[in-house]
Amino acid sequence: MKEKIKLGLIGLGCRGMEVLENVILLMEDIEVVAVCDVYQDRCENAAKMLKEKASTDVKSYLDYNELLTSAKPDAVYIATSWQTHMQIAIAAMNAGVAAASEVSGAFSVDESWELVKTWEKTKTPCMLMENCCYGQDEMMVMNMAKLGVFGEIVHCGGSYCHDLRHEVSFGRDNRHYRLDNYMLRNCENYPTHEFGPIAQILGINRGNKMLTLSSFASKSAGLHSYIKEHRPDDAALLDYQFAQGDVITTVIKCAGGQTIVLTLDTTLPRAYSRGLKIQGTKGLFMEDNRSIFIDGVHNKYDAEWKKQFNNVDEFREEYDHPVWKKFTQEEIKGGHGGMDWLEFKEFIEALKNDQPMPIDVYDMASWAIISLLSEESIALGGQPVTVPDFTNGKWLTRR
Amino acid sequence: MKEKIKLGLIGLGCRGMEVLENVILLMEDIEVVAVCDVYQDRCENAAKMLKEKASTDVKSYLDYNELLTSAKPDAVYIATSWQTHMQIAIAAMNAGVAAASEVSGAFSVDESWELVKTWEKTKTPCMLMENCCYGQDEMMVMNMAKLGVFGEIVHCGGSYCHDLRHEVSFGRDNRHYRLDNYMLRNCENYPTHEFGPIAQILGINRGNKMLTLSSFASKSAGLHSYIKEHRPDDAALLDYQFAQGDVITTVIKCAGGQTIVLTLDTTLPRAYSRGLKIQGTKGLFMEDNRSIFIDGVHNKYDAEWKKQFNNVDEFREEYDHPVWKKFTQEEIKGGHGGMDWLEFKEFIEALKNDQPMPIDVYDMASWAIISLLSEESIALGGQPVTVPDFTNGKWLTRR
Repeated sequence: MKEKIKLGLIGLGCRGMEVLENVILLMEDIEVVAVCDVYQDRCENAAKMLKEKASTDVKSYLDYNELLTSAKPDAVYIATSWQTHMQIAIAAMNAGVAAASEVSGAFSVDESWELVKTWEKTKTPCMLMENCCYGQDEMMVMNMAKLGVFGEIVHCGGSYCHDLRHEVSFGRDNRHYRLDNYMLRNCENYPTHEFGPIAQILGINRGNKMLTLSSFASKSAGLHSYIKEHRPDDAALLDYQFAQGDVITTVIKCAGGQTIVLTLDTTLPRAYSRGLKIQGTKGLFMEDNRSIFIDGVHNKYDAEWKKQFNNVDEFREEYDHPVWKKFTQEEIKGGHGGMDWLEFKEFIEALKNDQPMPIDVYDMASWAIISLLSEESIALGGQPVTVPDFTNGKWLTRR
Repeated sequence: MKEKIKLGLIGLGCRGMEVLENVILLMEDIEVVAVCDVYQDRCENAAKMLKEKASTDVKSYLDYNELLTSAKPDAVYIATSWQTHMQIAIAAMNAGVAAASEVSGAFSVDESWELVKTWEKTKTPCMLMENCCYGQDEMMVMNMAKLGVFGEIVHCGGSYCHDLRHEVSFGRDNRHYRLDNYMLRNCENYPTHEFGPIAQILGINRGNKMLTLSSFASKSAGLHSYIKEHRPDDAALLDYQFAQGDVITTVIKCAGGQTIVLTLDTTLPRAYSRGLKIQGTKGLFMEDNRSIFIDGVHNKYDAEWKKQFNNVDEFREEYDHPVWKKFTQEEIKGGHGGMDWLEFKEFIEALKNDQPMPIDVYDMASWAIISLLSEESIALGGQPVTVPDFTNGKWLTRR
């Protein structure tokens, strides 16, 4: 068991630097040995920061393949543009370097299969870094589901509701890939934040699988309206007809008989929400009003209860996930209220102890493919499309 | 202009008697002249009640055709089983008797066309009594939408979330039609409560129309679980595999580019909600947390705001619908917090003044057909099905 993991960072934009500063630098068993980005200035900036804050000299690379072969890290953390995550993870596994990939949607079925097959061939560890699977509410709800509090679960919902109009409209200024995606694609472009916890609750790839997916896009009006008001000087953007609809609704049917509704809602004014909803024969969790309804405990016509909502914290003491109980006692660390820290801890622990990755290539491939399938279903007018089984039948017996 | 409308009541079950007692008997310009039900005891019970409470002698009928031809009322109120609303409304129009039909889904495309064509031929008034179009929140939101508070509206949601496990499981005891529907059909069986207000906001049949509909059913587990616990003595029900899925998700695409998501959720434990959601380029209304979010006013990351939710009443003074402002000043009357009273007032006023019905046969046909189309789409594995345009193109210019 290694004492310190030698880590290379690939992708030094906003997310990469945030995780470096707020998570990686706090972890005693990680040693950053190399950084990489396609932009030279980002590399210099990261190297300088590591020198100042951690007294570390790192090597910089513009090409991730060079980083993999020359710096020979134990693992890489991949926080590049969405469309490059899989190819870098595949290259890392082939080089014998463990891959921790940031979240995104997939861009082809073939590349997703290649990801899976590369792991099956090399067995180099690879984990999808879906931090929302480590959220306190998400983990409490998973715990409650496992304990049967919601009964037999029949329906789930989740959403990525995040007003990103500024980030998209001003995307060129910080060289962000999001703008291209919104200009040219129309789909559930960011499914894993909401889908990850649902997949874990429903046992997708572990006793359950997705059968079909149907997706629907509203018209695109939010970005144009925002740009007219906030960026009237940018003639090209002002006239641009964005491909991406404002609200994308995706419905997934599972082998276990459950339905899942995902909502992407990122170009309209609204408060942030991941809209988790878990519904069973004995109870209901709803993030959008932060409520838990338990059969026989709460009254369906109780107007007072409805006025309060927000009773989730009443369940904390009994049902908070053991990981979070321990974690909150020890003091929360890292970004996004601790989620980022927990996911890195899981990755590093699994790596050091040679354990299976908690979110593996089958999960990464099947969670991410939702984007592409959504794009296809929308293009086909909402036709259901089939979801590949990346486990080749292993879902029947995997646990 | 008639001073009093002579009304016949067809259908004297739970809903018919509730409306008779809490609405009709309170209205000075209605005179009940006849009652009808397929069950003799219900007729006797209603006649007795009318004698006692209103000193009125009414004629009773087991056959609605006899009521139409013999009692010759000005209008009938139809509160029978779902599958008979349209045929009775058609018969009434053909007999020159105005029809006020309770809500339900449609059972065939052909009958829906016949409803429309019968009105076009006879011009006998016919109104769908969708009380939720007269709800205080719904009308305030309609008013705000009309005033542009939400900007350009791109997406709407609505639901009929009502735990009816008891009503369905014990349906035989009060001869309720719901049980048969849940045993034999799998669809959005009750769409108009949530769809009506959305249709009015989006101008369906008035400058807009539905293009396609796709529908998805979760497995059916709620009723079986409930019956096992609460009705273990009923062997037939205990073994029955209900056709109706617990959660039905229906997605509608509109000619105006908007998407609408409807949810039927009636066989799982939960609090009542019609889940109205109106989303535009400037703001968002969400019934599920009773919140309104306005661009530039509210902060998307404001955790405090999210903890409060429930800010709808802050908008009451500025945006409450004029009808409700007047109404609340005068004191609320009738059932369901005033909605029933308001819809009857609208029907009677339109009838007396020979005005167009506010919810007409085109609305009734197109709102109700959602049920059948949902049943078809679910049976076809979520295939999108096309929605008939019952206006034959008049939606382009109707206002």
